[in-house]
Parts: sequence; C-alpha cells; structure tokens
Amino acid sequence: MTVELVRSSAHDSDVLFAARVSTLGEQTLEQSQLDGSASEVDEKRDRGLINYLMRDRHGSPFEHNSMTFYVRAPIFVFREFMRHRIASYNEESGRYRELGPVFYVPSAERNLVQVGKPGAYDFLPGSAEQTALVQQQTRAAAIHAYEAYQRMLEAGVAREVARIVLPLNIYSSMYVTLNARSLMNFLSLRTKREGSSFPSFPQREIEMCAEQMEAHFEQLMPLTHAAFNQNGRVSP
Amino acid sequence: MTVELVRSSAHDSDVLFAARVSTLGEQTLEQSQLDGSASEVDEKRDRGLINYLMRDRHGSPFEHNSMTFYVRAPIFVFREFMRHRIASYNEESGRYRELGPVFYVPSAERNLVQVGKPGAYDFLPGSAEQTALVQQQTRAAAIHAYEAYQRMLEAGVAREVARIVLPLNIYSSMYVTLNARSLMNFLSLRTKREGSSFPSFPQREIEMCAEQMEAHFEQLMPLTHAAFNQNGRVSP
Amino acid sequence: MTVELVRSSAHDSDVLFAARVSTLGEQTLEQSQLDGSASEVDEKRDRGLINYLMRDRHGSPFEHNSMTFYVRAPIFVFREFMRHRIASYNEESGRYRELGPVFYVPSAERNLVQVGKPGAYDFLPGSAEQTALVQQQTRAAAIHAYEAYQRMLEAGVAREVARIVLPLNIYSSMYVTLNARSLMNFLSLRTKREGSSFPSFPQREIEMCAEQMEAHFEQLMPLTHAAFNQNGRVSP
Amino acid sequence: MTVELVRSSAHDSDVLFAARVSTLGEQTLEQSQLDGSASEVDEKRDRGLINYLMRDRHGSPFEHNSMTFYVRAPIFVFREFMRHRIASYNEESGRYRELGPVFYVPSAERNLVQVGKPGAYDFLPGSAEQTALVQQQTRAAAIHAYEAYQRMLEAGVAREVARIVLPLNIYSSMYVTLNARSLMNFLSLRTKREGSSFPSFPQREIEMCAEQMEAHFEQLMPLTHAAFNQNGRVSP
Repeated sequence: MTVELVRSSAHDSDVLFAARVSTLGEQTLEQSQLDGSASEVDEKRDRGLINYLMRDRHGSPFEHNSMTFYVRAPIFVFREFMRHRIASYNEESGRYRELGPVFYVPSAERNLVQVGKPGAYDFLPGSAEQTALVQQQTRAAAIHAYEAYQRMLEAGVAREVARIVLPLNIYSSMYVTLNARSLMNFLSLRTKREGSSFPSFPQREIEMCAEQMEAHFEQLMPLTHAAFNQNGRVSP
Repeated sequence: MTVELVRSSAHDSDVLFAARVSTLGEQTLEQSQLDGSASEVDEKRDRGLINYLMRDRHGSPFEHNSMTFYVRAPIFVFREFMRHRIASYNEESGRYRELGPVFYVPSAERNLVQVGKPGAYDFLPGSAEQTALVQQQTRAAAIHAYEAYQRMLEAGVAREVARIVLPLNIYSSMYVTLNARSLMNFLSLRTKREGSSFPSFPQREIEMCAEQMEAHFEQLMPLTHAAFNQNGRVSP
Repeated sequence: MTVELVRSSAHDSDVLFAARVSTLGEQTLEQSQLDGSASEVDEKRDRGLINYLMRDRHGSPFEHNSMTFYVRAPIFVFREFMRHRIASYNEESGRYRELGPVFYVPSAERNLVQVGKPGAYDFLPGSAEQTALVQQQTRAAAIHAYEAYQRMLEAGVAREVARIVLPLNIYSSMYVTLNARSLMNFLSLRTKREGSSFPSFPQREIEMCAEQMEAHFEQLMPLTHAAFNQNGRVSP
Repeated sequence: MTVELVRSSAHDSDVLFAARVSTLGEQTLEQSQLDGSASEVDEKRDRGLINYLMRDRHGSPFEHNSMTFYVRAPIFVFREFMRHRIASYNEESGRYRELGPVFYVPSAERNLVQVGKPGAYDFLPGSAEQTALVQQQTRAAAIHAYEAYQRMLEAGVAREVARIVLPLNIYSSMYVTLNARSLMNFLSLRTKREGSSFPSFPQREIEMCAEQMEAHFEQLMPLTHAAFNQNGRVSP
C-alpha cells in the first residue's frame, strides 16, 4: 500500500476562521490573522473552539480545506474506498492502458483466521501452513490470471475485455481528494481503535491505507486530529 | 446481467407538481390533482412543461422520485457503476458470505477488437479464433481462481482474505436507489446513442445494465423519458 | 408551519432487504418476501437486525426509500432547512410569482428570552410585555414591508427586485424529498430531546417542522424510528 | 457584493495529473513534473487534453482542487447560492450575533423592468421615477425593519426571534469552498453569456458575485477556464 500526500490546503486555522464567521461576521481572514498574535492564550482558545465544534457536531467548519492523496493499493481495497461518496476520485483505467503484473500477497503478519459473529469479526494469526497456503495460492492464481490476460492481449483482444480475468488483488492507483470532515468519516469507519464511540471492523488492507492518510492528516491539522481522537473518533 | 425494478415512486406528475410549486406556490398536490381533469389540453401542457424543464436545465423537479433496482452483474461492471455518487448502494459482501461460482463469459456477439484512439474507441467483432480464445481463457481462469478460493476456505482462511484471488468477472448483486435526474446522468454516460449531444463510450457490459434500467424508466415516466431523448440525452 | 406527506416509498422492509443482500446475496426482494411468513420470530429478528444496523452505524441500508413532504414555513426556517444538502428541494419562487401577505408571528407560547452561552442557549418564556411587543412589532414590520413591496409592484418594478424588502418571516412553500438516513440526520440536528447522544439546539420554528416530519416517519417506518430513538437519535 | 479569494489549491496541472493517472497509471505527481520540461509542445498538449476532457464531459479530473471564497452579499443572494449542494458553507449567524444595519439598495444601473415570459425574462432599465421609488422604498423599509429589530433586542428578546423582521436585502457574510467542477456548474447557471450552450437567467445580484468568482478562477486555472468558455460554458 502506498499513500502519498500530493496536494493540500488544510490547516487548523481554516476551521477557526470558518467557525468564527458565525459569531464575528464580516471579518475577513486577513483581519482575523492580524488580530491573532498567537499567544498562549490564543492557542488555548483555538484548541477549545475546535474541541467544542467536534464534540457538539458542528461539522461544516471542517469542510473548508482539501487534501489530495495518491494511493496505490489492490482493487479490493479500492472497491471499499469508492463507496465513500463525499470525495473525488481518478483511477488508473484498465480500458485505456495495459495493467502491470503487480499483485498484493498477504504478508506473514496478516491475521488469517476469522472468529466471532457477522458484523463483529475478530482476526487471529494463521498457522504456518495457512500462511504458506495463502501466499502460494495468491501468487499462483495471479500468475495464471495474468498469463490469460497476456494471451488475450497478444491475440488482439481489447484491453477492456481481456482485463476481466484479472484478480481483485492486482494493484491499481488513483488520486483521491477530500476534506477533513469527509476524511474523519472515512477514518472512523476504516480504522479500528480503542476509545472509539462506535465499533468499526475494517478489512486490514484498507486500514493500512487509512493509517497512512491519518498520519498526514495529523501533521497538517494537529488540533483537529487531537479533537477527533478526544471525542470518540466520530466525524462531526 | 439481471436488472429488476424492486420499488419505485416515480411518475411524470411528480415532476409537474414540483415544478409548479415555483409558480403556483401554496397549492398542495391534492389540489393540483383536483384541478387537473386530464383533458387533452392538460396533457399537451404537461408535455410542454417537462420538455421546457429538460431543455433549459431546470433539474431539481426531476429529483422528487425514487427507483430501486436489483442488479446482478460482474464486479468490473459494479466498479464503474459505483463511481456514480448520487445514488444509494448495498452490495453482496465477500466478507460476510462465500461467493458462488458464477462468472461472466463474453458471448459470441460481444465485439472484441478495439479501434480508434483513446477516449473514442470503437469496437468490431472478433474473429472466430479470438472469440473462442476469450471464452476459453475466461472460463479457465475463473475455474482456476475459484479452486484457489475454495482451497483457502477449506483450510480455514477467512473469506475476506481468500476472495482476493477471485477475478473481476465474478458475479455480484446489489440494490441501487436513485432518482430520475441521477438516472438520466447515468444513462447519458453509460449508453451510446445516436442523437446524443455529448459522445459517450461506455463499456458494453454496463450499457447492457443501463439499457434495462432505461426500459423501466421509460415505462414509469414516459414524458420525462421522451423529453430526455428529444433534448440530446443530457441530464438537466 | 404546515407539513404534509405527499409521496412515500418507505417501509422497514426496505431496510431489511438492502441489509440482507450483503449476507444472502442473490436473493431478490420477492423471494425474500415469500420466505418471510411474518411470524413472531421473524418480527423479533427484523427488529434486532434494524437495531444492530443503527447501533453499529451501517447507514446505507436506510437509504433505499424516499419521502416527499410539502412544507409551508417562513423563509428563516427554509434558510436553515436548505443547509441540509442530502435532499431535493423545489421552492415557491419570488421571481416567478407575487408572494402573498402571510407572515409568521410568534405565538404566546414561544419562549422569547435566551439564557446560557453561545452554542448551548436555553430559552425561557417572555414576560407579558415582551410577548406583546414581539407580536406587535412583527405584525407592524410585516405590514410596512408588504406595502413597500406592493408599491413597487404597482409601479411596474420587477418582482425579483421588489421582493428584496420582504422580511424573513414571510411564508414560503416547498417540496422536499429525502430518504430515512438523511431524515434522521435532519431530526438529530433539528430536534432537542432527552436521551440524545449529542446535544442539539434547534431554533424552535424548524423544530416544529421536524416534529411533524418525524410523526410521518414513525408511522411509515416504526422499527427504524424506534431503533433511532433507542440508539441516541444519531443518524447511522 | 464583496468576493475575496481566501484560500486556494487550484492549478491547471491538478487537472492534468488526475487525467493522466487513467492512462499512465502508477506515475506520481513529482515524476510527472520531472518529465515535463514545460516546452511549447507540452503546453499545446496540455491545452489539448484539458479541452478534450471538457468537451467530452470527463468531469472528475476537474475536482482535485479547492477554492475558498469569502462572500458578502444580501440574504436573497445567499438563498439562491445555497441551493448549490456540492459546496461547503459557513455563514454569519443571526442566532449568535446581532446583525449590522447594512442593506443592499439597487443602484441606478440595475435594470428594473421585466419583459418576456416566465423562465426567459429579460430586464430593461427603469424610468427615473421607478429608480427613485425603488431606492426610497428599500431604504425606508430597511430602516423601519431595523428599528423593530432594535426595539425587540433592547426589550431583551432573543436575537433568533427579533431577526425575523429583517428584510431579505440585509447583508450577510459567508465562506464557501468548492472545486472547479462545481464552480463551473455554478457559473453556467448564475451567469448569462453569449455563446453558452444552455440559456441561463440569473438574478443580476448573484451574477455579480459569480462574475467576481469567475475572475479569480480564470487567474488560477487559465487553461481550464478557456476550455470552459470554448465548450459552451457547460460544466463537464
């Protein structure tokens, strides 16, 4: 899984100015920055305002920002990703180009055995045999499928037809753009953490993407991220 | 491809009452129906109003309706489908259940050879050899992948892991709910028709779904559908 | 405030079939209804499934339904209403028609005095003098503004210009269409109730609309509504 | 009307990299910039790609960017503005603060007389008498309404109640954030220009905002803006 932050215009101050227009009105951003001499008092006040917005679900001030990520992940991850509708996507197309033979094979650390009941599964490590089987089968299936793909392409069959034999663990790449409110919703559903108000049971592979996105988010908007964690990791 | 209309609340009259609130104001739906004695004059007037709304892109009156479809199609079709964000989706989950061994194999009628340049491809019939190759390869690849899937399941590997070897042509099923405005946008991009204002180059398999959805739409909302066709098949 | 349910296709069973496609797959709606002999066991199971979906925030099954309301309310209510973006709106237009002289005047029961701090105001009854003042001032201001409106219209000034003097308490009317998930989000923010997981501080007038919408919702989808209440009135 | 560009992350190159991921796949943004030595050949190629995307309605590459505007305009403008749902809004609140006595009065240049039929009105200059009447009436109505507002506030009535007498031409302020695709949709509906594929009949006051937003957009994304104009000012 590769996640790179490609573009961003995302700062805690974007949340603050948007929230303050409600109460301060006609002040522009520049004025609001001139007023703020960034003292300790200000910082405490800013932190408090962001925490209040998060806690009481005033969500709209968290929308005036934008993050664009480049994500490289297998198609079964993208299938879950694109169910999130408040985001913009552009993905590599198997209709326009020949897809390369790069496939996801679960590492030895990947838990393989599912216990518990539907909707609340837990995962435990596989045995050595299970781990070996998974790695061997996913590799073999990928090679076999890719050979069929190549055979059809070489015979002059259109890419959009030939690709239908490719497996869900082939890698694809995309750009995705979203704002902090939408990202927090994504994180709340696609990561599993202690202290969350609502339980989430993400597939591990999309969680690996989500964790990388969260690290960027934390760097860009530390106060917002902290308030997200303090308030049960629920998107406001 | 299977498309069934599962639920609908979608009539041309829904468009009319929503449009008329702009100009008639406080009249309720029942009043507006009592007034309308459904004469020929009324029908011509209704047809004219819907055509005017479509032509001049007054889109919102086409949103006060709802259609729910059950769709059964291969995953590569669902991947394109779910890029349409103004719709509601619930799909069969490979995490919660074992997927059945049903795969899409292109029929002999499916054009296999792509000509033209990127963004404007045209498709021509394949040779007998190409057709045979495609059918043989997609079948063989599907069987091979499904065996790997079964082998992992039998060894106690979690469904969400085992499924990653399955190919993009395995069938899935979903419910999708959308309104006429969103459906017309879908149809404009996922069907290719003479007389369209904008060119579209849908993959044939999603077009096969779109055509079935359009047939239901035409039955439910004949005036709206006719106006869509008369105005270049652009969603207002 | 007037709220009428104009159209609906909204049943608890819509939630159930959408949820079950995840786990049961290719079953169609009709099959699922034939299977269900509506025994007590089934009802308990249905109730349990809906409660589970609500509690664990599986929101998408609550989207395959549709409710259209006719709402008549003052413009200051519509201003708040239309901030909810997951809905379809068509409103009476002051550009296309002359608006009638109907204005909202707070009743004697309307609490007039605000106490507490920003973001968590509480409201107490006004004194007899305050109540009389509000009723007298809103009436007088409305009459004065409407006379200015009429004077400009009579002089041949365009409706879209003349209307700019009209006050925020003039009544307008609209159709709004949304699904249960979006409606629950609206209700969670626009009603104030004991037992809510998150605090909300709606203006009383939009709450009066919301309460009427909720009564319809409860009738149409009793299990969904009950689960909404049991789980802190948070939209899943 | 005041429109300021507060924040932006919006470049023609954002469109290009998003479009090229479809055909070039795994290349990251940095790689794509290193490759591009910005020769004249490149510029012509870039211009051609953006024009092709616009013409054939490939809309998603125009979404990976963000513009935040501060807008100060009368409430009747905001009412139309906020019907655009693919955008983020935070507006000054009459519940949280006392609104200032600043009102929109149509200038002498504002056309006042409406001719033509519903849906396609044209506007002509008013007579000297009409112009004087409009200015006198809007001023007088504003003063009268604001006095009623003040009287109620002074008597201790809550702001959210007192404000209901204020007229639609009182100024408010907001932040709005949207991407280029959504902005082009806004511009196509809220400006009236020769050479547009679809007719639009915006109220002049929102068009004044739209024109200022368009000027910023043209500066930020000149190739995208040019392609928008060349292709009938339709959002892709």
